Formats: sequence, C-alpha cells, structure tokens
Amino acid sequence: MYSQLDTTTTIIAPATATGGAVMVVRLSGKDAITIADKMFRGKKCLSEAKGYTLHYGTIVDANEVTIDDVVVALFRAPHSYTGDDTVEITLHGSEYITSEVMRLAIGYGATMATPGEFTRRAFLAGKMDLSRAEAVADIIASDSRWSHNVASTQMRGGYSDKLSELRGELLRLCSLLELELDFSEEDVEFADRTTLHQTLEKINTQIGSLKSSFALGNVLKNGVNVAIVGEPNVGKSTLLNILIEDDRAMVSDIAGTTRDTIEATTTIDGIRYRFVDTAGIHTTNDKLEQMGIDRSFRAIRNAHIILHLATAEHPEFSHIEHSDEQHYIQVVNKIDKLTSSADTANDDRLYISAKSGIGIDNLRTHLRNITDTTHLSSGSIVVSNMRHYSALSRASEALGDALRGMKMNISSDLLSEDIRRVLHSLGEITGEITSDDILHNIFSKFCIGK
Amino acid sequence: MYSQLDTTTTIIAPATATGGAVMVVRLSGKDAITIADKMFRGKKCLSEAKGYTLHYGTIVDANEVTIDDVVVALFRAPHSYTGDDTVEITLHGSEYITSEVMRLAIGYGATMATPGEFTRRAFLAGKMDLSRAEAVADIIASDSRWSHNVASTQMRGGYSDKLSELRGELLRLCSLLELELDFSEEDVEFADRTTLHQTLEKINTQIGSLKSSFALGNVLKNGVNVAIVGEPNVGKSTLLNILIEDDRAMVSDIAGTTRDTIEATTTIDGIRYRFVDTAGIHTTNDKLEQMGIDRSFRAIRNAHIILHLATAEHPEFSHIEHSDEQHYIQVVNKIDKLTSSADTANDDRLYISAKSGIGIDNLRTHLRNITDTTHLSSGSIVVSNMRHYSALSRASEALGDALRGMKMNISSDLLSEDIRRVLHSLGEITGEITSDDILHNIFSKFCIGK
Repeated sequence: MYSQLDTTTTIIAPATATGGAVMVVRLSGKDAITIADKMFRGKKCLSEAKGYTLHYGTIVDANEVTIDDVVVALFRAPHSYTGDDTVEITLHGSEYITSEVMRLAIGYGATMATPGEFTRRAFLAGKMDLSRAEAVADIIASDSRWSHNVASTQMRGGYSDKLSELRGELLRLCSLLELELDFSEEDVEFADRTTLHQTLEKINTQIGSLKSSFALGNVLKNGVNVAIVGEPNVGKSTLLNILIEDDRAMVSDIAGTTRDTIEATTTIDGIRYRFVDTAGIHTTNDKLEQMGIDRSFRAIRNAHIILHLATAEHPEFSHIEHSDEQHYIQVVNKIDKLTSSADTANDDRLYISAKSGIGIDNLRTHLRNITDTTHLSSGSIVVSNMRHYSALSRASEALGDALRGMKMNISSDLLSEDIRRVLHSLGEITGEITSDDILHNIFSKFCIGK
Repeated sequence: MYSQLDTTTTIIAPATATGGAVMVVRLSGKDAITIADKMFRGKKCLSEAKGYTLHYGTIVDANEVTIDDVVVALFRAPHSYTGDDTVEITLHGSEYITSEVMRLAIGYGATMATPGEFTRRAFLAGKMDLSRAEAVADIIASDSRWSHNVASTQMRGGYSDKLSELRGELLRLCSLLELELDFSEEDVEFADRTTLHQTLEKINTQIGSLKSSFALGNVLKNGVNVAIVGEPNVGKSTLLNILIEDDRAMVSDIAGTTRDTIEATTTIDGIRYRFVDTAGIHTTNDKLEQMGIDRSFRAIRNAHIILHLATAEHPEFSHIEHSDEQHYIQVVNKIDKLTSSADTANDDRLYISAKSGIGIDNLRTHLRNITDTTHLSSGSIVVSNMRHYSALSRASEALGDALRGMKMNISSDLLSEDIRRVLHSLGEITGEITSDDILHNIFSKFCIGK
C-alpha cells in the first residue's frame, strides 16, 4: 500500500531559515555526490571520501568563479536521514549565495524538494514510521516545554509502539477469526472469545485515554488563544505590551490607535499563550475602523479566553457574545487612577493597572490556572495531532460496534469486519495503512528542507 | 598592537536563524569537545574522534533525558574557522530545543558568544586579516549580485593584498629614510628620492581610485533608498506593491490608509532598491496622521531617489524640498483613467498606471539607469566599508603632505613622519595596526554566532 512516488531523483533545498551566520543547503538522492562534486573544490573529490566526514573548500560556478567558502558534510547511503547519499553544504548566511548554489545544483540535475520531501523519503525508506515522521514537524514547531515534550515523546515512539503492539495482537486474533470462516460448517472456535473480548476492552481503554488527551494536546501544540477586547482607549494595547514584555503594539492616548488586530505570543510556565489585541469596539461610520472592529469579533470567536477590559473610572461591560467553552474574564484596568481602593470589590473581576504593572502577575497566574495540565509529566503520552485524533475516533467507533456485536453473538464474519475497521484506523496512524493522499496531506504541511 | 581579549573561554551561539528545518549551534574553544561530550550520546565519545568527522547521536540533559536527535560536526584545532576546537551541533529547527542545548552547555562551562566573537577569534589567531574578517559580515548581508561580488572579492583578499604589498614597499623605503637620520651629519641618501616619489605617486593613484569607488560601493552594499511621496490617495501604496510584486502595503480607496511609513526592497538587475511608501502629505489636525507625515519628510531626507506622485486627473506637484545630490522624479499615476492620451505629454515626467501596470517596466529601467554601474565587472575592487573609506581618506591626506614636502625638499625626519601616517592608516584597514576599540566597533556589528 506504500506510495509509488518518484524517489530516484536527487532533491535539494535549504535546511535552515534565511538570516543567521550560516545557512545549510541539503542535497539528497543517488546523484547527490556527483552533483556536489561538479561545484565543490576541496582537497579531494567527495566521491572518493568516506561517509560521516567534513570537507573544507569552495563552491564554484560553471566558469570556476568562486561563489563561497564552504564546509561540506558527507553522508553515504544508507547512513543518512533519508537513507540516500546526502550532502549538506554550510554556506555563509546569505540568501543570495544560497539561491546561487541551488541554481547551480538544479542546473546539474537536482530538483527542488517539495515540503517534507526529505522526511517522506525517510518514511518510504523505512527509516521511521508515519507517526514519528509527523512528530518531526511538530518538534520543529515546538516552542514551549510542554509542546516539545509531547512531540519528542511521539518522535521517540510514543503511542505508535504501543498501538503497533496492540494492533499486532488484534491482527492475530482477527486472522484466527477469519480462519473459522473456512471451517464455518464445522462450528469451531479458533479465536478464543474471552481473550478476544479482553483484547478489545484493553484497546478500547487505551484509545479512550489517548482520545481524552487530545484537548490538552491541542492546546499544548497550538497555544491558548486570548482575545483582549473592550471599548476604545481602555488600555488594551498597553496590556498586550506588558503581558508579552515588549513594545509590540503602538500605544497613544488617542482612542482608535489600534486599527488592525495585533498578535503576540508569550509562554507562561511552559504553556504558550497567543494574545490578540483588537480594535476598540464601538459604533462608527469610518470604513477602516469598521474593518478593524469586524476583525475584533473574529478574534473573539477564535479565542479560548476572552479578556474584556474596562476602566476603573467606568467599570461597565457591554454584552459580548461567547460560548460555554470559552473562558470570559472581566478585567478592570487603570486602577492606579482610583483615589479610594473601595471600588476594587471582592467580585469575579480582576483589577489591574497595565501601565504600572499592578495585578499583572495575578492575571498571568489566573490565565495559567485556567489551562489544566495536572495530568502532565515529562514523557506522558498526549495526542496532539488532529489526524491521529480522527483515526482514533474511527477506531473507537468500530471497537464499540465489535464489543456490542460480541454481546449479541454476531457471526464471525461480521465481527471480523468490525475488527478490520479497527485495524485499518490504527494502521493509518503508524503508516502501516496509507495512501498517496494521506502522505501528501501530511508532508505538504512540513517546511521545505525537512 | 593586537587585542589582549580573553580567548581562553569556550563560547557558544546559534549559527543559524530561527525557523527552518534544522538549526546549528556552534561551540568553540579549548573545552568545546569536553563540554559537548557531557551532553552528547553517540557510538563513541567525541574526545576519541578525529577532526573533520560527523557523529549521529542524541543530546541528553543532566538526567539523561533526551532533548533531541542530532548530528555533530567535529573540527580539531587548528583546522577550524576560529583555529580552536569546534563542535557544531545540528538540531531540529526549534528555538526551544536550541535554547535548551545552549542552557545545558552554559551549565557545563561555556559562555554565550558576543556578536562576531567567532570571527574575532579567527582574526586574532591569524586565520584572516581584518579587511577579510569585515567582508564576512558583508557577505552574510549581501542580497544582490553586486553586493555579493563586492564582499566576495574583499573576503578573498581584494584590495588588502594590494594594500599590504604597497605598504610593505613604503615601509622599506621609510626605514631607509629613518636610517639617514642616524647618519644625518654625513648627508647620505639611503632612500632613493626618485623611487620614493614614484612609490608615493603609485599609492596615491591606487588610493584615489579606491576612494572614488566608495559612492558606488555604498549603494551596492546598502541599496538605493527610494521615497514614494505625494498627496493622499494618489496611489503610493499601489505603486509600492507593484514595484516589489507583493501585497506589502494595505490598499483602500480611502485617503490616509497608510499611516506609518512602510519599507520593502526589491532587486533590479543586481542592484537593491529600498522603497519607502509614505503617508500622504497634506494639512491635518489629526495627531496620528501628523506623526505619519513627519515620518514622510524624514523618508524624503534619507532618499537617494524621490518619486513624487500625482494623478493624471490632477497632475499638479506641490514643491518638495530636496538636495542636488538627490534624484527627483515626477510621476503621473492613474493614466488608465484618462480618456485621451494627449495629456501624456513629452516632458520629463513619467506616466504610469500602478493599478494596471502601464509604464512600470519603464519606471524600473529609469531607476536602474540612474545608478551608474558602468565600471563594474565581476571581481572589480570596490570599497563599500565606511571605516576603510575613512582610513583611505586619512592616508590620502598624509600622502598629499608627503608629496608636497618632497617638492619643497623638507628634511628626512619630517618626510618620514608623513609617511608613518600613511603607513598607519593603511595598516588600520588590514589590521596590522589595530586597537581594542577598533575591534569592538567592527565585531559588535556582526550577528551572534559568526
């Protein structure tokens, strides 16, 4: 069932981001070394060198004009990321040089890699299963302690080892079940029904706990969306700036300074929060302002947490539509302007001064407490991938059918059909069952060069 | 005169930018290998491995918990960029992982590298002269064919080889001149005056041509600043977007959509142009708008080229202050709205439609022709560094004094003093004469990790 993509070409892409002191260009495939030798001038040819070696030299163009001084890392098949011959060229960190080197290599027969093509080749060469390959993208995107833990656990096997094991056991029982069909007239039972039932129950429990970890996993992976909303000039941009400890949003004492929504992220105790500062909500005839206000409402709809700001001088909160799943918090700002402290009543509201910093730590703690991570510990298995969650849900449904069927003593062939559906869904996670479409969907989300 | 900075520490920094499939952390200094071994787990210890080799393994924290799968490149002194033992760790491209690895290494005794510290160590170890070291920063920043050529020529020796040679010749003559002082009563001439005069003239010509290349070099290195100015709603943002072929600036039919200046660059035939879209200039009482207009005037002052836009319907251009060195071009936009073509008169103005693209290629050609690069060819020597230009100017001044002095038959000791000044200024370029201050100024402009 594996994809029959063309893996005979030699692909090239920058493996690092633009900027920085150096950039790395990665070349992989059967002609990687030959192509590299056409432009590399060092002490000796790369084709004569061993794998796992470094080579200092220059990259020259077709007229032998030097483009850059480089260090080349040589990996020989199968001992490379992709399993193919691979050459990594470390260049000075200039986008111009990188594109020149790419242009040369493409002239010598390399093709530009598509997103995730290196990792796809690693998967097709059997270097890693699909769930591990997907974790590579997640680990690159990880930007907090917990999102890294989740991705790292998955990359190192995570639940795919456990799922493969359970799937193997189920497959064996299913084969026995199907063997019964060949002897259907003799009414034999090769697959012990008690063992089968126990195995199904065990898998059901496992899948259930993996499924229930998804809500948390999704937050760990993608961060918590927090919308900062309110009328003009209540200090929304000032609050954003102090929460992220940066001067991200333009601040003035003029109402309507923030025209478009502004996003910025920060990490509180290992969890990432994405704050969206919005245009002040009020009635206006100004077209540009109205565009901004429409975008404020969009930010509110996408938020996990809504911070609704008003000032201590006018602590009134107009009604803001939100769902039950969203956390809605009323925040009273500018309390430094109050003459008496009597107004900071003992209610559900939070009282802050974004300008002077009063109450900000308390607000941070409040945000962090809303996100329940009590079940997390290093190495705990959490599902953070939407595709896996869908597959687990399908497996769970089929398992329910199988368990109900066993109770009602359905025939072996119907039971085996339900179990086949479980096997199929679990196999999709680890890549034992896959298709070009699935692979395309997964790897097109990767960055170029991975 | 070399700097006595502490080069006994082991320094660490990311060598690549954030993002991308992989990131590289560079560790260099006498303890680089020992420190790396504390966190690297592979087939064998790095301390037992040869230089110029690659090692696959994992990075673990103090509790042996895996942080990432990595490839380590090992360089042994003196065969590395800095001349010290160097370890480069290729990690998955996550900022989180990179900072964790840095934190670990710093815990084991490494210190965070200051900007340019790797290259400064390379210079202090005699791996490259100062002019070449400075070219490393320029080559990283190069983003067009010409800026790359200029930096690349300088990095490969460029004028520093030539200057060193001339300086050597001058130093020899100066020593002979100073020898005469010891025999001053005997009226001997060790330094042949004709040869001396010829050498001074030769250096003077060289320095003159290097100095005159600076105006071009500066433009090649830093790009050409183009301000797009005019009254509100004449299509400035639309022009910016079409020139850079991107949707950089927010566009609407409402006057005053652009509030702050917006910058974007593009390359035309190997030269980089930095376009600044500005807020429309008009009289206003709006404080935020006035802030934007003030910034428009600042952009005009910094521009090499001013594109002054008006519309075909109202082709009137208010007076805009500019200097003689600035190129001022009047551009008539929205000519697609004209019913007759009679108005696109044969004058100095350019006629375009930014919306439909009419006349844009012509505008590009016009911009490119203003920048005179007729004397450029691959490998031509161009001074692009302000510090070098200053040193060349000082050398030129001292040379003038020496040549005038020779005409007036001044004494050997006065002549030698002038020549010493020439030697000093030329030595500053290549780093034969330097100080901590000069080094600090140069390397603090580098990025971290280089």
